[in-house]
Amino acid sequence: MTRVYNFSAGPAALPEEVLQQAQAEMLDWHGSGMSVMEMSHRGKEFMSIAEKAESDLRELMAIPANYKVLFLQGGASSQFAMIPMNLIGRTGKADYFRTGSWSKKAISEAKHFGEVAVTVNSEHDGKFTSVPQADGFSVSADAAYVHYTPNETIEGVEFPYVPSTGDVPLIADMSSTILSRPVDVTQFGMIYAGAQKNIGPAGLTLVIVREDLIGTPLDGTPTMFNYATHADNGSMYNTPPTFGWYLAGLVFQWLKDKGGLAGMAAINERKATALYQAIDGSDFYQNPVDPACRSWMNVPFTLANAELDGEFLKQASDVGLKTLKGHRSVGGMRASIYNAMPEQGVTTLIEFMAEFERKNG
Amino acid sequence: MTRVYNFSAGPAALPEEVLQQAQAEMLDWHGSGMSVMEMSHRGKEFMSIAEKAESDLRELMAIPANYKVLFLQGGASSQFAMIPMNLIGRTGKADYFRTGSWSKKAISEAKHFGEVAVTVNSEHDGKFTSVPQADGFSVSADAAYVHYTPNETIEGVEFPYVPSTGDVPLIADMSSTILSRPVDVTQFGMIYAGAQKNIGPAGLTLVIVREDLIGTPLDGTPTMFNYATHADNGSMYNTPPTFGWYLAGLVFQWLKDKGGLAGMAAINERKATALYQAIDGSDFYQNPVDPACRSWMNVPFTLANAELDGEFLKQASDVGLKTLKGHRSVGGMRASIYNAMPEQGVTTLIEFMAEFERKNG
Repeated sequence: MTRVYNFSAGPAALPEEVLQQAQAEMLDWHGSGMSVMEMSHRGKEFMSIAEKAESDLRELMAIPANYKVLFLQGGASSQFAMIPMNLIGRTGKADYFRTGSWSKKAISEAKHFGEVAVTVNSEHDGKFTSVPQADGFSVSADAAYVHYTPNETIEGVEFPYVPSTGDVPLIADMSSTILSRPVDVTQFGMIYAGAQKNIGPAGLTLVIVREDLIGTPLDGTPTMFNYATHADNGSMYNTPPTFGWYLAGLVFQWLKDKGGLAGMAAINERKATALYQAIDGSDFYQNPVDPACRSWMNVPFTLANAELDGEFLKQASDVGLKTLKGHRSVGGMRASIYNAMPEQGVTTLIEFMAEFERKNG
Repeated sequence: MTRVYNFSAGPAALPEEVLQQAQAEMLDWHGSGMSVMEMSHRGKEFMSIAEKAESDLRELMAIPANYKVLFLQGGASSQFAMIPMNLIGRTGKADYFRTGSWSKKAISEAKHFGEVAVTVNSEHDGKFTSVPQADGFSVSADAAYVHYTPNETIEGVEFPYVPSTGDVPLIADMSSTILSRPVDVTQFGMIYAGAQKNIGPAGLTLVIVREDLIGTPLDGTPTMFNYATHADNGSMYNTPPTFGWYLAGLVFQWLKDKGGLAGMAAINERKATALYQAIDGSDFYQNPVDPACRSWMNVPFTLANAELDGEFLKQASDVGLKTLKGHRSVGGMRASIYNAMPEQGVTTLIEFMAEFERKNG
């Protein structure tokens, strides 16, 4: 068996140690005689798995007691509706930052449920390559919340700061940046993330939400789209995605073993810095993003000669560097280097890029 | 390692062969160098997995081409809202059969989105132990659809026929009976099922829906709750639960190897018949359900002396017969004997029951 370096934007690489443990436990978890995915979600075995996952996440992110942690389904795309359905009712209005493909989707869905003010729009010439300065926006006085996307997975643009929104709750789609560095949860009303980038397998969605924001959904909100349904039932109103929850727990344990989020941040900064230096140090490769807000997680780059894209991808694949094709809306390449991507994977990519340039430059 | 016989109602036992294959492929699917759960859902490897799963399911159930097969998230509980949000609009009214705990939940949610006529109510003295005769109900002329629960997981009540509803589309929550025997899909407007009983792991929901019923949702239906969103995008509008989809495909292949649904039906009938005979042949055990509509999948039973329940469950667990406790709303025991429960598991349970009666009767 040869494992590859998988630069997929999501579903994405998982830590090899986590997969090995899941493999070892696949038919018999801790002598229970059954797989985790066969367990009743209400039995003591799975309850212990679920509780440990939540408490490890709370420890990793220092989540205060007045925040609920929900283990849901439906991805960030479901949150795009659940957020306004649950939270816009207070004033009927919300502020949204428009900084890339995913925030555009969030805005589009929110408009079905209330009035959306786009208070940041960083699009220039059809591209998203920067975010405003920390004082470069205002908060609407009547906004029920401010929504933003700290890391735009497709464009590779990441906020270098947490926006200050005063008393208006800040909501962050952290799908592609959660757990990559420490954050101060108290700065947020709500944080959410699809699992398939930095948490675990697709099909699990994490929601971390301040308790006082729960419980006033719009009329017509389906029971399953009401945060209170899940908050009041420990995410077990109905059967949760148990195997994903278990794998997320293994990832949380792995993160603790790696030194927590401060430890991961140091590694992630090294990986991203090395890759951007390789890109910037060559005329053969380009990254279009303002250096002040380049993503640590998703690094898009183009070749000076786009006709070589296909050959680059083919040769990279041949040496075990997989899923480097950029999103069709941006083109070129994208290296997603989440927590589970080892430093050696980035080093190998950089060496391959230098070699490819030497042959084709 | 000792595998147990797991009688959980869901999440439930999976075929050991399926778990073994998933284990073997966990870090490297077919030489790809990655786990299925690490693959981009849009890459050719996962697309091949997804397409094979769907085509195997279509073959197993003989699903006609004018039905869409959707691989969704959110469980049957999400379908309880999605069904009226997508399908009740034609007339604003729907008929619901009330035959147990799960149909009650479906009714409760549907009432938020339209007018519900409960045209069958089989509750007597607070219990659900039968269903009406095949000619024992009428269909409202202005019903947009008729909804029923062919197998009530908690009460162990199963319809021995498919209700005839004329031109009004019939919708079935098959969560606990799908794939247990052949069905004629053309008798249904829509079939849906949470995966965690007879399909695969929790977090995947199958919807099989006639194309002409898609595309007229109520105003305010979230994008992710609109069947058209998923039907138009091959269930990949957003990231699907890829690992669950893969495991479902392994189960479908296993079913084909077992002789398809006719083969499974023969085994399931043998298992259920043997267990009900053991219960009926003893004054020590009882099952309250009308013999004409006893479930092949979920067999609740009580002891004549309920004070022995705890001892029964403890001794059963000691010999590897797990998760036999009945639902709190019914009490006693429940043996869920889905496709993945081997005949030997039922035989072992019957032997244990006889031995327990001999010692305690």
